[in-house]
Amino acid sequence: MVQKPQKMAESWSFLDTVESNFRPLVVIELAKGTKEETIEWFTKRIVDKKADGGAQLLIKPLVTANGHENIYLVGASHLRLLLGAEAVGLVKECNDNSMRTFTYSSRKTFKDFADDNHNFLTMAECQYIIKHELENLRAKNEKMIPGYPQAKLYPGKSIVRRLLTSGILVQIFPLHDREELKKLRHSWYGRVRVGYQPLDDIRCYFGETIALYFGFLEYFTFALIPMAVIGIPYYVFAWEDYDKYVMFATFNLLWSTVILEVWKRICAILTYRWGTLLMKRQFEEPRPGFHGVLGINPVTGREEPVYSSIKRQLRIYLVSLPFVCLCLYFSLYVMMIYFDLEQWALDYHNENESNFSSLMLYVPSIIYAVVIEIMNRIYRYAAEFLTSWENHRLESSYQNHLILKVLVFNFLNCFASLFYIAFVLFDMKLLRQSLATLLITSQILNQFAESLLPYWLQKRHNKRMKKLTCSQKTDTDLSLAEQVNMEKEMGTYLGTFDDYLELFLQFGYVSLFSCVYPLAAVFAVLNNITEIYSDALKMCRVYKRPFAEPTANIGVWQLAFETMSVISVVTNCMLIGMSPQVDALFPDSKMDLVLTVAFIEHLLLAIKFIMAFVIPDKPRDIQMKLAKLEFESLEALKQQQMKLAAESLKE
Amino acid sequence: MVQKPQKMAESWSFLDTVESNFRPLVVIELAKGTKEETIEWFTKRIVDKKADGGAQLLIKPLVTANGHENIYLVGASHLRLLLGAEAVGLVKECNDNSMRTFTYSSRKTFKDFADDNHNFLTMAECQYIIKHELENLRAKNEKMIPGYPQAKLYPGKSIVRRLLTSGILVQIFPLHDREELKKLRHSWYGRVRVGYQPLDDIRCYFGETIALYFGFLEYFTFALIPMAVIGIPYYVFAWEDYDKYVMFATFNLLWSTVILEVWKRICAILTYRWGTLLMKRQFEEPRPGFHGVLGINPVTGREEPVYSSIKRQLRIYLVSLPFVCLCLYFSLYVMMIYFDLEQWALDYHNENESNFSSLMLYVPSIIYAVVIEIMNRIYRYAAEFLTSWENHRLESSYQNHLILKVLVFNFLNCFASLFYIAFVLFDMKLLRQSLATLLITSQILNQFAESLLPYWLQKRHNKRMKKLTCSQKTDTDLSLAEQVNMEKEMGTYLGTFDDYLELFLQFGYVSLFSCVYPLAAVFAVLNNITEIYSDALKMCRVYKRPFAEPTANIGVWQLAFETMSVISVVTNCMLIGMSPQVDALFPDSKMDLVLTVAFIEHLLLAIKFIMAFVIPDKPRDIQMKLAKLEFESLEALKQQQMKLAAESLKE
Repeated sequence: MVQKPQKMAESWSFLDTVESNFRPLVVIELAKGTKEETIEWFTKRIVDKKADGGAQLLIKPLVTANGHENIYLVGASHLRLLLGAEAVGLVKECNDNSMRTFTYSSRKTFKDFADDNHNFLTMAECQYIIKHELENLRAKNEKMIPGYPQAKLYPGKSIVRRLLTSGILVQIFPLHDREELKKLRHSWYGRVRVGYQPLDDIRCYFGETIALYFGFLEYFTFALIPMAVIGIPYYVFAWEDYDKYVMFATFNLLWSTVILEVWKRICAILTYRWGTLLMKRQFEEPRPGFHGVLGINPVTGREEPVYSSIKRQLRIYLVSLPFVCLCLYFSLYVMMIYFDLEQWALDYHNENESNFSSLMLYVPSIIYAVVIEIMNRIYRYAAEFLTSWENHRLESSYQNHLILKVLVFNFLNCFASLFYIAFVLFDMKLLRQSLATLLITSQILNQFAESLLPYWLQKRHNKRMKKLTCSQKTDTDLSLAEQVNMEKEMGTYLGTFDDYLELFLQFGYVSLFSCVYPLAAVFAVLNNITEIYSDALKMCRVYKRPFAEPTANIGVWQLAFETMSVISVVTNCMLIGMSPQVDALFPDSKMDLVLTVAFIEHLLLAIKFIMAFVIPDKPRDIQMKLAKLEFESLEALKQQQMKLAAESLKE
Repeated sequence: MVQKPQKMAESWSFLDTVESNFRPLVVIELAKGTKEETIEWFTKRIVDKKADGGAQLLIKPLVTANGHENIYLVGASHLRLLLGAEAVGLVKECNDNSMRTFTYSSRKTFKDFADDNHNFLTMAECQYIIKHELENLRAKNEKMIPGYPQAKLYPGKSIVRRLLTSGILVQIFPLHDREELKKLRHSWYGRVRVGYQPLDDIRCYFGETIALYFGFLEYFTFALIPMAVIGIPYYVFAWEDYDKYVMFATFNLLWSTVILEVWKRICAILTYRWGTLLMKRQFEEPRPGFHGVLGINPVTGREEPVYSSIKRQLRIYLVSLPFVCLCLYFSLYVMMIYFDLEQWALDYHNENESNFSSLMLYVPSIIYAVVIEIMNRIYRYAAEFLTSWENHRLESSYQNHLILKVLVFNFLNCFASLFYIAFVLFDMKLLRQSLATLLITSQILNQFAESLLPYWLQKRHNKRMKKLTCSQKTDTDLSLAEQVNMEKEMGTYLGTFDDYLELFLQFGYVSLFSCVYPLAAVFAVLNNITEIYSDALKMCRVYKRPFAEPTANIGVWQLAFETMSVISVVTNCMLIGMSPQVDALFPDSKMDLVLTVAFIEHLLLAIKFIMAFVIPDKPRDIQMKLAKLEFESLEALKQQQMKLAAESLKE
């Protein structure tokens, strides 16, 4: 591709003519003091024609009261966005209610499409398209970023990623739509009401990944209600009968399998409606932080950094693995200190029995819960640092290694003490008390650290900002410049990882020892109801708007939850087998007791696997729709081949 | 599509001109006394141009000494076969050693392609293409098969399938290539030698499904050798030490996981080389036996027979399921009779101790083994009948239901007595004896019934045929007519189902009770070595040549083997826990024993699942090759979209 000589002025004038249509979608913040030549080159590449290797987007500097601040607004023409929608493979609904991959040539067949309907693509979709186009803006012959010789480029390297890693580009973020956000807030958490969340609206505004998290959170809360309802009488009437506990545990185990299987179906329904179930996977580019010496990628045949897989394996097995083991050991060490504390509190209580001393009994658990939370958070940073140091080429591989590290540690850190109490100390009373304290404390801490604290900080910051600008306007009245300046200071939402992790640990508290503490489900339900509100608040008011990320499922978390439910079968069977009530049923032979429990456990596990196998992952109508689409594409291919064959055979 | 009026003569004369190139590939046998008008219509449809809805193949009646016998030979021009290869989506090797889907337009880029090289497609591939084209020969406006008003047709119905179900078409089978077969036989089992089978040659001649079976059989045999080698000293030195048995069982369990995981990788290597790993799944048509009232298929939108899913469910749950349960009950009943017999033999032996009486001890087991085999075979027919009566629309669904029925029954039928002896009678001596007798008897019976008996029958038949034709020629000298006449009388190979089932049961004998009878692996290895030879003999000399079936893996059998290996963890742990040597290690507390065994069992299961998760299903180089292909296709799509976008944006 030969780059035609093109004057800067030309593209800017092109922009000027369409400025009336310019709708700012994405904000680019460059570092203060970025060289002029760099800015010129970068903006030129953004507005350049596709044929010349540009992104063909629109860009406009933001002029504020303080003057020019190296902040740019990016938009795109309607036509450009439609072509971008085809490039990212968006799936939209057609006039015949089927979901199809959008192509510009077949645009007339799509529902609500009209050449002048600029709402055919949602704002989140437009922003996703612009992000995709910006990230795919690639170096041609440039050897470096103009003005920054140390920021090397090679043909095919994503310019934006290089700018980000060399610190020239501070951030790229999508703008909020104040009107839309207000509407969404109102229907989401604006009034206290019983009902479902507006998932489709959330998806339109925040994208599929976040909507799916809220969908899962809501589903999970509803799914816990039967367990909570059944659990309440156990507490109220202080039931301790053997058969009732067994029934509760059995119900729990089967129920947890059912809800995880049913979630897959609901997830398929949601993502089919949103189009992401049908979306083709894009080829995965190296993640931004990946570095290495220039070499030939055997898959793409392109020159790009390569990093030996052996070196990475060495780093994983010789550094990361020992480090994780060390952390696990440390966590166990802290646990032993907790038990010393517990013992000390018990001794104290026995010596001077008073209201204060019986309250003191709870103190070690509360301290331990706080320490666990702190350790989890510190470990999280260490895990991120280590995984990033392992230098994974793909984001997916990075994520898998990070999730594995974090899950193993968090699982041990949170549940080791409970396992120890249950299966080494055999102290059911302490187990119940410990479980309750850990669960409730961690819930309170999480709610506080995750949403309320950032909200309060944000609020304070906003007030200060407003005082500075001396304006008394409400949010929706803000000028664009004020809005951008406010949003660029907001925190960045780091993805759904922590939110899922919290649910995962909660699921562990509820299911692992469910037969000992049936009330856990009640607390989980209560927590999740407020969690929906505080997470919604967090998304709408605390953080910058995140880019929409299309996704078809909750990924590795499905596996994590399923693994937890398998482990909980084992723990619950053991707990029931150890209870004195069950013991009393086998007065003669402990052997028979253990064998019976082992048999029931295997039976439950077998039922679980058979159920997971038998319940189809997608509802029948979604299966039919997918089959229909597949049939059509095969039919089209066949027709094409038939035509070709008929032509070739016409001697 | 308007059908052009075309005289019969034209197409036949077209055939005459190319007759010198005519290579018979597939034989069609019509019923004796088929009406002339039907034959004329059918052959015309076969030779008709693609554009007129025909198959555009070549067809020639076979004229034998006895005159015209309604047998036709089908072939195709080289060009027709190449276009057919594109239609079925064959994947071939390119000049740059990558595997790609063959298209006629890119034919020059494929390895060994030349316009005059008629060996570019193997004979098996040509025959598969012809089968595909014949099966896809569909009715246009015909309401019935001409001459047979009861054989209804509707637009889009496969003509060949209707002809088959109405008995007009007796059979379609591919011709053997005597020269090739002789070469294959020689390299396969012609001389006694140590080494691998010529899998690539087998695949070229018989297709991927059969080659993959032989590949699995060979792999499985090699994989059993370590177990056999370790098992021999246990027998020779009569080791009965606890630690040695535990070691053997542990090795067995981990080994069986490893071999099943490694098989997936080897399977990927094989099918990548053969091109089937990359082959796109074709849209599945209704199976031949499916019937129903005409309706609209919601997926294809075509008019075709539909059958209510509720009716099918009713048949499955109200008839098939009770029937299977009844059969299971009957099988258990027979088992109880066997135990009576066993008891009687033991009593007899105790009363009159002699050589004869100690031989008599084995008789009940042998009788029982024979009865098991007979019951398995009878049940097989019943299961086929029932599953066919359930009227599944798709062949895959039919196969899954059939396999499930057969597996459950065979598992119980073969192993129930062993489970009973092991875990109810606790008689390890009887278990070992029973296991040995069952394994060896069933192996002998299988080898006899599967290969030697049909071979002998075939040999006798051939001799008689030769006497009738008074010819003394060897196989390769036979005229085409003689060859066709001989082959059409041969039995039809019914697929790999029985062969895999046999291996599956053998795997059960070897692994379920491996710690009791380490010699089982030795017998399995010996059996499998002869099995390779007898199965090869069966394929080459006993049965008609089967049509090649492309496949990318061994399908549901992988799951079946994995399930068996999970079950064997449980049984082995129980057996070891019950052994007196282990018992002696825990003199004080049986409780500790059981808990230890349960703990080890869970640990082994966890290791199994982690291993299955960690070992990648495809070797790294195959993953890279697949990624490369995916990248290329995405890149091509992007280029296409870029071009379109550049055009659309050029105002």
